Amino acid sequence: MNLTRLVYYSQHNPSMSLGVPDLIATCHRNNAALDVTGFLQFNGHSFLQVLEGGRAEVSSLYNRIVTDPRHLNVILIQCCDVRERMFPGWSMGLHEGMDEQTKKVFLRYFSGNTVNPETIGADSLLAALRDLSREMA
Amino acid sequence: MNLTRLVYYSQHNPSMSLGVPDLIATCHRNNAALDVTGFLQFNGHSFLQVLEGGRAEVSSLYNRIVTDPRHLNVILIQCCDVRERMFPGWSMGLHEGMDEQTKKVFLRYFSGNTVNPETIGADSLLAALRDLSREMA
Amino acid sequence: MNLTRLVYYSQHNPSMSLGVPDLIATCHRNNAALDVTGFLQFNGHSFLQVLEGGRAEVSSLYNRIVTDPRHLNVILIQCCDVRERMFPGWSMGLHEGMDEQTKKVFLRYFSGNTVNPETIGADSLLAALRDLSREMA
Amino acid sequence: MNLTRLVYYSQHNPSMSLGVPDLIATCHRNNAALDVTGFLQFNGHSFLQVLEGGRAEVSSLYNRIVTDPRHLNVILIQCCDVRERMFPGWSMGLHEGMDEQTKKVFLRYFSGNTVNPETIGADSLLAALRDLSREMA
Amino acid sequence: MNLTRLVYYSQHNPSMSLGVPDLIATCHRNNAALDVTGFLQFNGHSFLQVLEGGRAEVSSLYNRIVTDPRHLNVILIQCCDVRERMFPGWSMGLHEGMDEQTKKVFLRYFSGNTVNPETIGADSLLAALRDLSREMA
Amino acid sequence: MNLTRLVYYSQHNPSMSLGVPDLIATCHRNNAALDVTGFLQFNGHSFLQVLEGGRAEVSSLYNRIVTDPRHLNVILIQCCDVRERMFPGWSMGLHEGMDEQTKKVFLRYFSGNTVNPETIGADSLLAALRDLSREMA
Amino acid sequence: MNLTRLVYYSQHNPSMSLGVPDLIATCHRNNAALDVTGFLQFNGHSFLQVLEGGRAEVSSLYNRIVTDPRHLNVILIQCCDVRERMFPGWSMGLHEGMDEQTKKVFLRYFSGNTVNPETIGADSLLAALRDLSREMA
Amino acid sequence: MNLTRLVYYSQHNPSMSLGVPDLIATCHRNNAALDVTGFLQFNGHSFLQVLEGGRAEVSSLYNRIVTDPRHLNVILIQCCDVRERMFPGWSMGLHEGMDEQTKKVFLRYFSGNTVNPETIGADSLLAALRDLSREMA
Amino acid sequence: MNLTRLVYYSQHNPSMSLGVPDLIATCHRNNAALDVTGFLQFNGHSFLQVLEGGRAEVSSLYNRIVTDPRHLNVILIQCCDVRERMFPGWSMGLHEGMDEQTKKVFLRYFSGNTVNPETIGADSLLAALRDLSREMA
Amino acid sequence: MNLTRLVYYSQHNPSMSLGVPDLIATCHRNNAALDVTGFLQFNGHSFLQVLEGGRAEVSSLYNRIVTDPRHLNVILIQCCDVRERMFPGWSMGLHEGMDEQTKKVFLRYFSGNTVNPETIGADSLLAALRDLSREMA
Repeated sequence: MNLTRLVYYSQHNPSMSLGVPDLIATCHRNNAALDVTGFLQFNGHSFLQVLEGGRAEVSSLYNRIVTDPRHLNVILIQCCDVRERMFPGWSMGLHEGMDEQTKKVFLRYFSGNTVNPETIGADSLLAALRDLSREMA
Repeated sequence: MNLTRLVYYSQHNPSMSLGVPDLIATCHRNNAALDVTGFLQFNGHSFLQVLEGGRAEVSSLYNRIVTDPRHLNVILIQCCDVRERMFPGWSMGLHEGMDEQTKKVFLRYFSGNTVNPETIGADSLLAALRDLSREMA
Repeated sequence: MNLTRLVYYSQHNPSMSLGVPDLIATCHRNNAALDVTGFLQFNGHSFLQVLEGGRAEVSSLYNRIVTDPRHLNVILIQCCDVRERMFPGWSMGLHEGMDEQTKKVFLRYFSGNTVNPETIGADSLLAALRDLSREMA
Repeated sequence: MNLTRLVYYSQHNPSMSLGVPDLIATCHRNNAALDVTGFLQFNGHSFLQVLEGGRAEVSSLYNRIVTDPRHLNVILIQCCDVRERMFPGWSMGLHEGMDEQTKKVFLRYFSGNTVNPETIGADSLLAALRDLSREMA
Repeated sequence: MNLTRLVYYSQHNPSMSLGVPDLIATCHRNNAALDVTGFLQFNGHSFLQVLEGGRAEVSSLYNRIVTDPRHLNVILIQCCDVRERMFPGWSMGLHEGMDEQTKKVFLRYFSGNTVNPETIGADSLLAALRDLSREMA
Repeated sequence: MNLTRLVYYSQHNPSMSLGVPDLIATCHRNNAALDVTGFLQFNGHSFLQVLEGGRAEVSSLYNRIVTDPRHLNVILIQCCDVRERMFPGWSMGLHEGMDEQTKKVFLRYFSGNTVNPETIGADSLLAALRDLSREMA
Repeated sequence: MNLTRLVYYSQHNPSMSLGVPDLIATCHRNNAALDVTGFLQFNGHSFLQVLEGGRAEVSSLYNRIVTDPRHLNVILIQCCDVRERMFPGWSMGLHEGMDEQTKKVFLRYFSGNTVNPETIGADSLLAALRDLSREMA
Repeated sequence: MNLTRLVYYSQHNPSMSLGVPDLIATCHRNNAALDVTGFLQFNGHSFLQVLEGGRAEVSSLYNRIVTDPRHLNVILIQCCDVRERMFPGWSMGLHEGMDEQTKKVFLRYFSGNTVNPETIGADSLLAALRDLSREMA
Repeated sequence: MNLTRLVYYSQHNPSMSLGVPDLIATCHRNNAALDVTGFLQFNGHSFLQVLEGGRAEVSSLYNRIVTDPRHLNVILIQCCDVRERMFPGWSMGLHEGMDEQTKKVFLRYFSGNTVNPETIGADSLLAALRDLSREMA
Repeated sequence: MNLTRLVYYSQHNPSMSLGVPDLIATCHRNNAALDVTGFLQFNGHSFLQVLEGGRAEVSSLYNRIVTDPRHLNVILIQCCDVRERMFPGWSMGLHEGMDEQTKKVFLRYFSGNTVNPETIGADSLLAALRDLSREMA
């Protein structure tokens, strides 16, 4: 029953074509079956993704991403048990691109809008993604 | 005067017929006489029940359930003194089944809607049952 | 200048007639002169009373009750300095009887509506009396 | 893996003979097999027992006690998940009787040495039993 | 089982002779029978006394003092439930007089060694009495 | 510079031989080069491992384990930034087997010594592993 | 730049006439020049005054009051650095007399409306004066 | 990604002419390029400035100010990592002069409106500047 | 009974001769009679003094200093009720001069050893004086 | 009197020769005169330095470093008021190089021993420098 939240960063492998609509459709199908929810921000080059659900399901999805050739340089930012989901309404919310409004949200919590996955604070990142999801709702 | 809250799980004994309306009518009668309140979620196979009242009354009701052949595999999840009732208005609120809305409430706090009584967190369970009772009010 | 709050329980001496209106009129007169405020719940058999005011005045009123033949089995539940009065508007609020609504208020914080003065929690009792006073306001 | 602690009170059924050494031997055998630990205080008339272990195992032992004819008036005082065992070294520590030293331990936390199971504070009771176990170590 | 601590001040009635040894002997006899413990400081003119034990027993002892002609101007300083006794080893510790060492203890927590019972802080007073009891141990 | 701690569980693939000494020698070599420290408990069937170091290094080691055929059913238990290492002295501490003393350490924090990786509490697990490392020091 | 708040009590010297309007006009002139703000309650016999401003300015005003023959028995109740002014809008708010409404405000926090400057609590006094200033606003 | 906030004071070099509009235009251009935000209060003689952004960018801007001949007596008041920007909407808010309203804001938190940069509290200063920025919004 | 602590700064009036031994002898005599304790640091030019005792006594001593021609520029640093004396053993501890060791104590808490009475932090000052008193003990 | 602590990083300008003994001798001379204390770690390429003292003195020293051609890429890590010095005994402690023991200290708090000045945590850095200073004491 444990509820786990995992946040990771990865880069899109430029040598592989990426069909974002297909990707999200697959996410929705897989996540709904596993009762996993979350949010994905894709700026065209790199992914920031939150996964919420059972520990085994979340691990298993993350482990599959690690071996997926479309993802390079996968870096785990945080993985912790949580009391309540942050994105209960999204089987996988997608936010694409980096327009002015998105940049403004990132700048609330960071010094810029390019993310360094090795040092980014998980709490600040979750705050920014939550703000993005609210603007989309 | 101590006010105690007890939460348990049990499975419905499939070899015995269960008249839920009768069960609840009996609950109401017994609980009202003992000033016991609470909430019962029955998904068709297993029970999750909260009992609130005097320590002796709550113990005595729970002990009776333990010996009731309609309940199998009774597992005590929590029993603590509390400052104030969580379900003061219900001599025994009943929530039956597991429709989409109910599942949604469970998923707020858990990784799925099938409960493992040995590991479920009591606080998360109480939060989910309180959310259910509010939607019924 | 110390502000003190005292809570006690006592039983009405059944061998003495009790004129509640007279009692309250006396209370009002005495308390107003001493700048004492408070609340009295009388269920027909026993008293639960809160006194708020100067330490010497509150002690003196309590000590008089101890020697008053109309009160039997006087039990002191709590006496502490406080920062602010809980019943500033009542020279002595009176709540009589135990109708359904009153019982409901007691059941929010207790396992029943008969009070055991030796074990009742002072904070729960004050919460119940404050709820009663608000319903009367 | 959840670690649960349960505290209950019961009275010895005077119409049934009680072989305390046999009882404890059975306890040790059963508890060791289930990785349950705990402490039992028997003053000749009533039991105060702590059980620590897995939730299902602790529930199952408690449920068996409820139906054991040697126990009357079983009252559950507390049952909560805990972080660490309080009696890890005792498959079932036994403390019998109520000599002067035992009474002294009880008086540290209570107004007397006869326990009212309906109002006794679980934390104070655990403090007293832990003090007894330390004096026996 | 509730454990209560009560602190009061009173003046010795100068028109009545006071046999302190008798008083204490009576205290010891009464308190031991009721499992009440405590501490008494008598400076020759006024008493500061702590009573610890069951709520009914402590109330009853205090109520008897209120009607005892040897005590004048009895002022209740505090009465609260407590978790553990502060003077478990004393059926009634007696500290008499106000020598230099006693005055020094009082001056740690007060501006002087004459006590104003209407404003004295209960916590400071308990700290001073505990220090006195430790010096006597 | 971020310091990250990651805890995971995995099962040994029974169809592959495992040379624990080789494994550890490789660990030591790899970890020392990356300034990664940690602790590994292997009970003969499953691994519990803590990795502490830079976020990218820890991710990269974990991602390699995910794809290592000797590990099956890899489940991530926790991954968080930390202020200070818990195992600074171990390039990779190894604790093998499950003797009586080891079982005793596990029972301090769990209901048994078989770990359910989907529900085990990360803090309790770290407490148990730290206790094991101290006994080995 | 330190912001300091000082509260004192004094008695009006009955042998000197007191022109309250003149006093306040002087206050306003002096305080405005020194950026000092505050509140003054004068019940006809004694003053309760709060001064807020720079430490040197507040000290200097207080020291002048000490030597002013119109003030007798000046007692300093509190003087502390503060983060923000409590009476920023008043170069010197004046509240005169002790009508029913004023007495009611005092009784919220005190046992009566005659102030004992040696024991009055500074926080309660500031709460009462702030309530008075709000009623005047 | 670290977000840093720096607050400093400096004096305008009176021997150099200062074109405030030019200064601010340059600020806006530089800060926007570096994703630095902040607020500047200039009373005609001295500057109080907040810079928020990446640590290197903020340091670099501050270091440039240190060597800028238009600034004399540059004193660093605070520099800390922060969780969220205080002035996200201002590439550089400018507040000029010291009118009555501005003085009133300063007096909320200080004893006067002339700032001593060696002793001014950073938190009070930020509170005053935030209040000014809100009045300008 | 309130216990108050007052800290002030003043300058020695250079036009008046100061007999420090006489001053201290007077202090001892006056303070002992009033149960006032404290500590005095005199660096040859200015005084830093702590007074602890009853509110009226401390006020009265401070008010006398304000009018004493040997003291100039008296600035009140803090005056608050306290729970326990900091200098219970000193009717007035005297520390004179500013040797290397004294300077070292001041530098633990301040940027230098010359005190600015308008901005010095009362807590830091008390820490420094307490350290001095300990080195003298 | 404010006590300020500043931490910065800089790189040694490789085109300028650096006489560390001379540098430190100058530091000692300057700092002692200004009552500034601190600690300097120089690994041969970059500096990590802590300065503690008055705000103006610390600012002035830091501002001089910013313009000193021997320092490149000066990055301010933290500057805050503090209650007590961390390095009171060092007019400027010097720790040079990066031997095994030094690396071990850095690895307690960081993922490696090369510092990224833009992301390093100030608290972790101070903890590491304090550990180094203790090993040198």
